[in-house]
Amino acid sequence: MAPSTVFVDVGVSLDGYLAGPNRGPRNPMGGSSTIIHQWIFETASFREHLGMPGGARSPDDAIVKAIFARAGAYVTGRHMFEEGEVSWPENAPFHAPVFVLTHTPREPWPRPGGTTFYFVTEGIESALEQAHAAAGGKDVRISGGAATIRQYIQAGHVEEITLHIAPVLLGGGIRLLDGLGAADLALEQVEVVASPLVTHVRYRVLPRSRPGA
Amino acid sequence: MAPSTVFVDVGVSLDGYLAGPNRGPRNPMGGSSTIIHQWIFETASFREHLGMPGGARSPDDAIVKAIFARAGAYVTGRHMFEEGEVSWPENAPFHAPVFVLTHTPREPWPRPGGTTFYFVTEGIESALEQAHAAAGGKDVRISGGAATIRQYIQAGHVEEITLHIAPVLLGGGIRLLDGLGAADLALEQVEVVASPLVTHVRYRVLPRSRPGA
Repeated sequence: MAPSTVFVDVGVSLDGYLAGPNRGPRNPMGGSSTIIHQWIFETASFREHLGMPGGARSPDDAIVKAIFARAGAYVTGRHMFEEGEVSWPENAPFHAPVFVLTHTPREPWPRPGGTTFYFVTEGIESALEQAHAAAGGKDVRISGGAATIRQYIQAGHVEEITLHIAPVLLGGGIRLLDGLGAADLALEQVEVVASPLVTHVRYRVLPRSRPGA
Repeated sequence: MAPSTVFVDVGVSLDGYLAGPNRGPRNPMGGSSTIIHQWIFETASFREHLGMPGGARSPDDAIVKAIFARAGAYVTGRHMFEEGEVSWPENAPFHAPVFVLTHTPREPWPRPGGTTFYFVTEGIESALEQAHAAAGGKDVRISGGAATIRQYIQAGHVEEITLHIAPVLLGGGIRLLDGLGAADLALEQVEVVASPLVTHVRYRVLPRSRPGA
């Protein structure tokens, strides 16, 4: 069986931020940064995923639906988990196994709706191996945050990146690509889909920037 | 007659830089940043504009052609002019009046092929007025560099911004949007065109971020 694809899929502002300047457990997205994600809140598939009614069946919706469908397991950093732990609904929005990078051992934490959080203290390689094994042949999504995504990029594990570029400026916060250069991440642009609220661009990570590949 | 549109049109890296880290008169684009512009060098219209043969008639080419056709006059900062003065061909690539912001008075400098550089010491408003008057009903392009573009954005004069987002990282250099926030620049995404080498996104600047409009 061909190994599944490791992908990153994040919304960013036009000035490159994935979270605003005042991020923390009580303010997971950092101030005004939810405006980056306005497009996704208006899609039917995202609302279904959270158990909410309404939303549109649009080109944006088709993209969200495909992202959820392909991900068989997730990897997240500790900060992202801690922010989500206090803000996600009980029926957490993954509906799949989620491997959380941490230094603190903890028993697996199953949630209603098919999400189980597994806490991995053995590092990023171990978390990725466990996610591959749990994904049932589907793809593995490195969810975030930015530092976790960069670690996986620099280790050469990320094969595909989709950015949802919103026409908004945050003016500060956490930049996804800060600290990375051309040697860390060489890309081929493979697909662009636009709607009035966002430009979706999918990139393949080229083998020359993936020493481990 | 409706006043002509003031627009910005720049190529940027995926990490938001319009020039690389080692920019200067002998290295106008700053190190490896010419890779941002690879797509434009391959278009027939850009090569014609520089008096060079070859190039493709592609969707990218149609975009370049339209940009050249709409600009009746240009405004540039002093640094951009000084960099260009030593690197542009004698037949400078504007073929239109160019208003250069400077503190040093200088006589107009006509070049073969229809470019004349006018040196404006009275500030950005004066340069824009002169450019409007010289544009013959066509649009005015604020060419750059980044600091000049930001000045015009913050003064509320820029009505439209096109970014050509290349799938490359520079990892350092000059960021177009640094120092700007949502209050300085509110955008509506109006058109997206993609080719394998670049994503072209055109934004309208919304009146709420244009106090002078």
